[in-house]
Amino acid sequence: MNIGLDMMGGDFAPEQSLLGVQHYLESEYGSTSDSVVYALGDETMLKPQLQSLIDGGKVVVVHAPDLIAMNEHPTRALKEKPNSAIALGFGMLAQGKLDGFISAGNTGTMLVGAAHIIKPIAGVHRPTIPTYVPKLNGGYSLLLDVGINADCKPENLEQFAMLASVYAQNVLKIDNPKVALLNIGEEEGKGNLLAKAAYDLLKVNTSINFIGNAEGRDIFTGKADVIVCDGFTGNIVLKMAESIYHIFSHKRKVQDEYLETFNYENYGGTPVLGVNKTVIVGHGISSALAFSNMIKQADSIARSGMLGQLVERFQVG
Amino acid sequence: MNIGLDMMGGDFAPEQSLLGVQHYLESEYGSTSDSVVYALGDETMLKPQLQSLIDGGKVVVVHAPDLIAMNEHPTRALKEKPNSAIALGFGMLAQGKLDGFISAGNTGTMLVGAAHIIKPIAGVHRPTIPTYVPKLNGGYSLLLDVGINADCKPENLEQFAMLASVYAQNVLKIDNPKVALLNIGEEEGKGNLLAKAAYDLLKVNTSINFIGNAEGRDIFTGKADVIVCDGFTGNIVLKMAESIYHIFSHKRKVQDEYLETFNYENYGGTPVLGVNKTVIVGHGISSALAFSNMIKQADSIARSGMLGQLVERFQVG
Repeated sequence: MNIGLDMMGGDFAPEQSLLGVQHYLESEYGSTSDSVVYALGDETMLKPQLQSLIDGGKVVVVHAPDLIAMNEHPTRALKEKPNSAIALGFGMLAQGKLDGFISAGNTGTMLVGAAHIIKPIAGVHRPTIPTYVPKLNGGYSLLLDVGINADCKPENLEQFAMLASVYAQNVLKIDNPKVALLNIGEEEGKGNLLAKAAYDLLKVNTSINFIGNAEGRDIFTGKADVIVCDGFTGNIVLKMAESIYHIFSHKRKVQDEYLETFNYENYGGTPVLGVNKTVIVGHGISSALAFSNMIKQADSIARSGMLGQLVERFQVG
Repeated sequence: MNIGLDMMGGDFAPEQSLLGVQHYLESEYGSTSDSVVYALGDETMLKPQLQSLIDGGKVVVVHAPDLIAMNEHPTRALKEKPNSAIALGFGMLAQGKLDGFISAGNTGTMLVGAAHIIKPIAGVHRPTIPTYVPKLNGGYSLLLDVGINADCKPENLEQFAMLASVYAQNVLKIDNPKVALLNIGEEEGKGNLLAKAAYDLLKVNTSINFIGNAEGRDIFTGKADVIVCDGFTGNIVLKMAESIYHIFSHKRKVQDEYLETFNYENYGGTPVLGVNKTVIVGHGISSALAFSNMIKQADSIARSGMLGQLVERFQVG
């Protein structure tokens, strides 16, 4: 597999992205994989840093001198900076020269690129991004959407459930993943208008293992492997969980094994689900460990056969 | 003040409600107050337990032999059980024989009683319940609505902001409380349709101190004293926060001073805001400490003059 990484994206790039590539290639997963990391960025800076890995055939540098800033307008940035890592990365991904592309840079640009250069899988109305939710007894659930789709229709939530189920099965290796609807009561008939209508669709969808509602108190218990909600609610949950980690781990100096599983570095970034290729969006503050885990994640997805399954699943008729 | 307490409501009543009354009357607040606790329940059981407090003039027992179960239909229960603590309590509150009424029993019945026997303050479209959110640097914010109003209009969020501002000022003694809109971005123009429309109302409302959006990460930082959202989102946040406390304090045995401020017992229950009297709804699992703090809270609200201010604030014209 050829995995592209924007070396210039993120608050601590390229220092941390360079360290991340090294960390990945020294890890058990990376050192035994035959995949190649395509490092996109300014080659005059990157090549000297990566020379031994280039010589070893593990890394290819792609010259991408343009820089897209964190606050640039996504569509304009992609048009006006064709030699940026993000524009070049999506181009190579669309042409099949890359099997996955990762950036911790301008999130809006990543989402616009995924939706407009890579494009949604036929039948998918809205691409979506999940977050990993640590289960109290180990492993992760997926909660989605976490912010691309602030206003949702019931059909969107149904598709999020289908997308994340296939991801959970193929990438997280969870057999017959349990799907729940995030809601404000346990029983059918509870909720706001959106949740009530989404429940009706989810309970008759035979392609997913729908187990009913999950309340706010069930998010971390592992009741479900996939929890669906609109992007407004999901974004609040995501940022609240991040702040809980920040407050207790960093400010209150609490040391707890379970608390540490809240650290985003454990998975690194989030896949864009529902588009035709493997795209990973990283956290702006991505560290070396986060970059390393994103490369691993992209490689796992690209190898998983998930995209083929999704294309089939959403085929009309 | 005369504060009524349903002695039979809650999973651990009447053991914990009896201990709660004692705890309250032994506390600094309760022992120095001239208020009287009206204990509503089966007098044959209550009187022997409370005899010395009755003799001391601190407690009056009101015979309420009917029991409303946790899962009973609210409207039917109120009609069919006129001698239940909740039905009698609301009756006495409406007649001015009580200045506040508290129950940790059937929540639906409490809300129906508040809305239909006590009734909303003229001009208030929807009564609401907040939750107390512990600020990292001490004290509490209010986040509302947390579940009565699953679907909201922008005008509802505006009224929640007005109601909680007056509560924060009068009861929490926060001067000129900062009001924020729970949202998925910092800047104006972010959010779902509801949040965008609510922002437009909040920013021109001169009766509140609106400071803009608060994201999920800002909930615990004390950025705002009042955070408004629809009841779906708020209920997810509330139950997620409760489970964070439960997981880290009880299951992971984390000992941390800030974590302990998440314990609902610290405030005991939640006021119903926007109705004409002081009504407190308790947690089903209410402990003695929770009951004690609810009595204190009801007494504080009843003394605060908040209701008069609200009536004035919502007066049309």
